[in-house]
Amino acid sequence: MANDDVSGIFADDAVVGTVRTLGTHTVTEQEIVDFAGAWDPQFFHTDAAAAQGSVFGGLIASGIHTLAVYQRLEVQSRNMHWHVIAGAGVEGLRFLRPVRPGDALTGASTLTACQLEPDRRRGLLTFDGQLVNQDGKVVMDMTMAAYLHMRELIGRSL
Amino acid sequence: MANDDVSGIFADDAVVGTVRTLGTHTVTEQEIVDFAGAWDPQFFHTDAAAAQGSVFGGLIASGIHTLAVYQRLEVQSRNMHWHVIAGAGVEGLRFLRPVRPGDALTGASTLTACQLEPDRRRGLLTFDGQLVNQDGKVVMDMTMAAYLHMRELIGRSL
Repeated sequence: MANDDVSGIFADDAVVGTVRTLGTHTVTEQEIVDFAGAWDPQFFHTDAAAAQGSVFGGLIASGIHTLAVYQRLEVQSRNMHWHVIAGAGVEGLRFLRPVRPGDALTGASTLTACQLEPDRRRGLLTFDGQLVNQDGKVVMDMTMAAYLHMRELIGRSL
Repeated sequence: MANDDVSGIFADDAVVGTVRTLGTHTVTEQEIVDFAGAWDPQFFHTDAAAAQGSVFGGLIASGIHTLAVYQRLEVQSRNMHWHVIAGAGVEGLRFLRPVRPGDALTGASTLTACQLEPDRRRGLLTFDGQLVNQDGKVVMDMTMAAYLHMRELIGRSL
């Protein structure tokens, strides 16, 4: 599944500075409550009535949920196979504005760095990612790093 | 729900250095596949057969899923109400080892800083968090920040 396929995006193919728009996901109240019920059961994420008494005046999405929306958009928007090994980590994840039921979140990703490790046939790619709501306001931004395979060498034995 | 309740943990109550153990969550194959199917549909998270051909030799959990496990443990382990306003962000999130089906992840959290903002009756609390697997190996660590309410002043008009 990985390196026998020479099509798709390998670490070697990375063009630093590339910007991708990732499409839009609308967050419903049910999705907010379901996600938080499983993973972040705090009342301002799970209980619409109680959340009216919070500083936000209503339900807001869990930050983990918001990050998950970004990741879903990022993966689903790939128009060819990316030879990802695994995510490495996230820096500077900030929840800048509340995400509320009905918000339409649009993602963008900029490749900011690519550090090849030829001995390990992999590269570490770093992306600035953000989600913007229907009012054009950034609700989340962060920097995410992931390892991708490098292309196998052709005629390696020569 | 928030400040009329004087019990529970407010920002003012934070004791920097406090360490909490957060309990254990066992990650099943079904949970890995379900989470990633919704939020991170890459083959090494969703397709057990294809994942055998990955560098990990089998399914691994999405990093977002792993972070969600931490958050679930953190919230569920509170033994009294925490007067949380909202999460602020995450720094230095690292996925250090793969999380595989059947792994039992145990969380720990250390309060490393508390910055009160009396004018806004809130404080920013910073926690070092980690998840350790059944072999005692750290699979994820990060620093998470959240705003908590401060206690209302008693006799404020005096």
